[in-house]
Amino acid sequence: MTANDMKLVVVGAAGRMGQALIRVIHETEGVTLHAAVGREGSAFIGKDAGEIAGVGALGVPVTTDPLQAFLDAEGVLDFTTPATSVTFAGLAAQARIVHVIGTTGCSVEDEEKFRAAARHARVVKSGNMSLGVNLLSVLAEQAAKALPAAGWDVEIVEMHHKHKVDAPSGTALLLGEAAAKGRGIDLASKSVRVRDGHTGPRPGGTIGFATLRGGSVVGDHSVILAGEGELVTLSHSARDRSIFARGAVAAALWARDKKPGFYSMLDVLGLSH
Amino acid sequence: MTANDMKLVVVGAAGRMGQALIRVIHETEGVTLHAAVGREGSAFIGKDAGEIAGVGALGVPVTTDPLQAFLDAEGVLDFTTPATSVTFAGLAAQARIVHVIGTTGCSVEDEEKFRAAARHARVVKSGNMSLGVNLLSVLAEQAAKALPAAGWDVEIVEMHHKHKVDAPSGTALLLGEAAAKGRGIDLASKSVRVRDGHTGPRPGGTIGFATLRGGSVVGDHSVILAGEGELVTLSHSARDRSIFARGAVAAALWARDKKPGFYSMLDVLGLSH
Amino acid sequence: MTANDMKLVVVGAAGRMGQALIRVIHETEGVTLHAAVGREGSAFIGKDAGEIAGVGALGVPVTTDPLQAFLDAEGVLDFTTPATSVTFAGLAAQARIVHVIGTTGCSVEDEEKFRAAARHARVVKSGNMSLGVNLLSVLAEQAAKALPAAGWDVEIVEMHHKHKVDAPSGTALLLGEAAAKGRGIDLASKSVRVRDGHTGPRPGGTIGFATLRGGSVVGDHSVILAGEGELVTLSHSARDRSIFARGAVAAALWARDKKPGFYSMLDVLGLSH
Amino acid sequence: MTANDMKLVVVGAAGRMGQALIRVIHETEGVTLHAAVGREGSAFIGKDAGEIAGVGALGVPVTTDPLQAFLDAEGVLDFTTPATSVTFAGLAAQARIVHVIGTTGCSVEDEEKFRAAARHARVVKSGNMSLGVNLLSVLAEQAAKALPAAGWDVEIVEMHHKHKVDAPSGTALLLGEAAAKGRGIDLASKSVRVRDGHTGPRPGGTIGFATLRGGSVVGDHSVILAGEGELVTLSHSARDRSIFARGAVAAALWARDKKPGFYSMLDVLGLSH
Repeated sequence: MTANDMKLVVVGAAGRMGQALIRVIHETEGVTLHAAVGREGSAFIGKDAGEIAGVGALGVPVTTDPLQAFLDAEGVLDFTTPATSVTFAGLAAQARIVHVIGTTGCSVEDEEKFRAAARHARVVKSGNMSLGVNLLSVLAEQAAKALPAAGWDVEIVEMHHKHKVDAPSGTALLLGEAAAKGRGIDLASKSVRVRDGHTGPRPGGTIGFATLRGGSVVGDHSVILAGEGELVTLSHSARDRSIFARGAVAAALWARDKKPGFYSMLDVLGLSH
Repeated sequence: MTANDMKLVVVGAAGRMGQALIRVIHETEGVTLHAAVGREGSAFIGKDAGEIAGVGALGVPVTTDPLQAFLDAEGVLDFTTPATSVTFAGLAAQARIVHVIGTTGCSVEDEEKFRAAARHARVVKSGNMSLGVNLLSVLAEQAAKALPAAGWDVEIVEMHHKHKVDAPSGTALLLGEAAAKGRGIDLASKSVRVRDGHTGPRPGGTIGFATLRGGSVVGDHSVILAGEGELVTLSHSARDRSIFARGAVAAALWARDKKPGFYSMLDVLGLSH
Repeated sequence: MTANDMKLVVVGAAGRMGQALIRVIHETEGVTLHAAVGREGSAFIGKDAGEIAGVGALGVPVTTDPLQAFLDAEGVLDFTTPATSVTFAGLAAQARIVHVIGTTGCSVEDEEKFRAAARHARVVKSGNMSLGVNLLSVLAEQAAKALPAAGWDVEIVEMHHKHKVDAPSGTALLLGEAAAKGRGIDLASKSVRVRDGHTGPRPGGTIGFATLRGGSVVGDHSVILAGEGELVTLSHSARDRSIFARGAVAAALWARDKKPGFYSMLDVLGLSH
Repeated sequence: MTANDMKLVVVGAAGRMGQALIRVIHETEGVTLHAAVGREGSAFIGKDAGEIAGVGALGVPVTTDPLQAFLDAEGVLDFTTPATSVTFAGLAAQARIVHVIGTTGCSVEDEEKFRAAARHARVVKSGNMSLGVNLLSVLAEQAAKALPAAGWDVEIVEMHHKHKVDAPSGTALLLGEAAAKGRGIDLASKSVRVRDGHTGPRPGGTIGFATLRGGSVVGDHSVILAGEGELVTLSHSARDRSIFARGAVAAALWARDKKPGFYSMLDVLGLSH
């Protein structure tokens, strides 16, 4: 830690994602854990955030007071629940700091509140905080746009661990949306989600999905563009759940000197358009 | 061509597979095109087999007389129809030569006739003449047997060109059968053929299939065994349809000095058990 | 063929690439073979271009007169030699038509002549006419730019057939140049071309190359960006040599209604910047 | 934990591998942590083994007395140093229990002592305790044997994290040895370890290696067999270092009811021959 380190608050500090954030902050240069906030009533309140996360004592106890925690902080990393994130967004706006939101399942109303907060806070929000996946979605859109639909078929295949209960993955659908955007088509009406038995020839202009499940795979995704005699394959392999925490820290550092506003991981990557 | 070259007859010589066989024989050392047989009434009867196949004149006209063609021949390469192959099997048995059968869709009765012919002929028959695919099926069986089902999930993914009308491919099912045999389970009752929406966790002990379609892919297959923290992937990529012709020629050469009998490509690979 | 088909001339018509061009023109909608030009003294002069290419008679004999061939033509497809391509560029400029140049090994002086011709002709020139490879180079540049060098290592691996005599492939180096451009570094001084024995840890900011050789692989290339806990892989697999002919025809069609100028395949893909 | 759980001792309990072993024992059915042994003078002596490993108190303190630890134990898991492993082998022989040795760098003399101990102990020793890698080596040997060298080229490519200081990896060489054994050739004289510049065509019958480095990759290996028009690829991807601990526990369970002897992971997999 140095004097210029960015001072970050982890909310949901006692949860699985909170602990991962604390570990990544601990091992990343240029950032320091300023405060840790847990849920009222959690057994971890008052304990050292570093010990909970398995990196040894950091001298930062888990508290239940976000207002106090945000004082003098420069950013908040937040993978909690929609309602909690909305509250934190208000506090981050008051404190005029960075608010990185990895929370999923937010409603349209929640999104409006985040955008309102972004008049004063620098909000970075994404459904998947991995740098690699966000990059892949931009590349998939470009590839789908550049290679004509008449000659190039788009297929998306993903593999996740055996415990995953839905198919295709949210990230596979996000990549499908990107390809559909590149093609200027509507994903829902152009998706082929299953193939079995006599399917007939592949309908032109569709986007196919295939799902694999097994073992402990964190998440592998490929977007395949198949033409006559050649294949372009754009893949992402998540080997470690820490990448989502890592992306959130990268987002905070990126937003540190930006103007208030509502940003996505594509902005962080310099790929928004 | 040398004096010791194995003398091969191509039946169905004017068809796509027949032409591929003629080209492979032409470019393979140790074999020579002895005769070429086509269908009665075909426009190619009397034409030079090499010219039809695009390798220049070989001095071997396409005829309609298999009896004459098999005289002095040492082997027949046959990717025709079940009924025709049964007839050729009888002739090959009389001539006591090698009969390589790549014909698909044969009935149980047809198989019995091939086995009867195999008392005098050396018959090599397989649903897929590629050396690589046949090897892969043996390796998949061994892998599925060696890695315990409790900790290792089997998934099979295949990709074929956009014109293919059925899913999964026959070869994917053949690989699934091999894995099921290794596991000592019944494939039909243990297959997961599609996944979409809320699937729930992966049922233990199943074999999953996923199908990709696009472009002009000849045939890519992978058998994935996914355990805690590790993946074993066994793959085959067919880049060129000529591999099936190539496998048939390899089978003929292998069978040349064998005793009469009914063989598979696993015997050719030295992997039967 | 319809009245509006683009009328294309194939030069070097009796060569391997010329024949591939004739086949692709034959099977592509919107283009027609207008003339075929061969080398003076070639055994194929006067023969039907379609028969040489194996698609049956097209009524277009191979001639030795480019001037006549270019008359009334709309485009020339040219995978010949630098000297010959320079001559054709002059003729294409006079005829004010499209000149697609896939010729490799051109000198700086040759390039200047092509650029001079491009004041009147619409020249499209690229070292690799595959749409997929050209797209990949753009995506590799963007990925290398978006993912910070401090956390993401770039590696390039390629596989080609056993007959290839140099390593890494020209396309691997082209992809390396693209990644280096994205990173703002000089490829030559930052390349790691071999690793063997005690190498020490990977030097940060370098671009590594690895080469595989075997079988009949037309050309597989991957650009890997490896970060902490995640990998992004951008791949191209050429399954058939016809893709280079296919890319040339696509380039001609794209350039048909463009202004005179010097274009690359990136322009054809709408990805130049 | 149930009455029939196999009672295991972890030696080197305070090290990185020791902690991984404690975690895997904790989460695996059928085994229980019986004792934990550390180095004399280690700061962890007397502390709870479970707390060190991050799984909470297990009531098993780290001690310095292997003799006491092996009493009533059924197996020892040992990733320490050659000298220490030799000592433990003597004690395991006296206790007539299972000794799983993942220690690397052992001399010929050490190996002799392990074999001597194996007259009374059930010793399982391997240079790589991953089930998947050991399976892959057997499959690679079979594939190299089944597919004739004249038509099929063997290539091995591996990727590891940026901190790895040697190339190719020990596991890549182990896979190369397996392929060489299948081919009946000497690996050292038939290896192609680097390719750069004008290499000439690939020499027939060789085994090529290629090395990739980047990010945090635990270890990915592929053995590629490339023929005319087809590729067979056998791959292993280690996603998590825990697989080596997992393999050791599987080896202990396998050896529990075996006769004294010297075994390898291939025996555990039922693949020795």
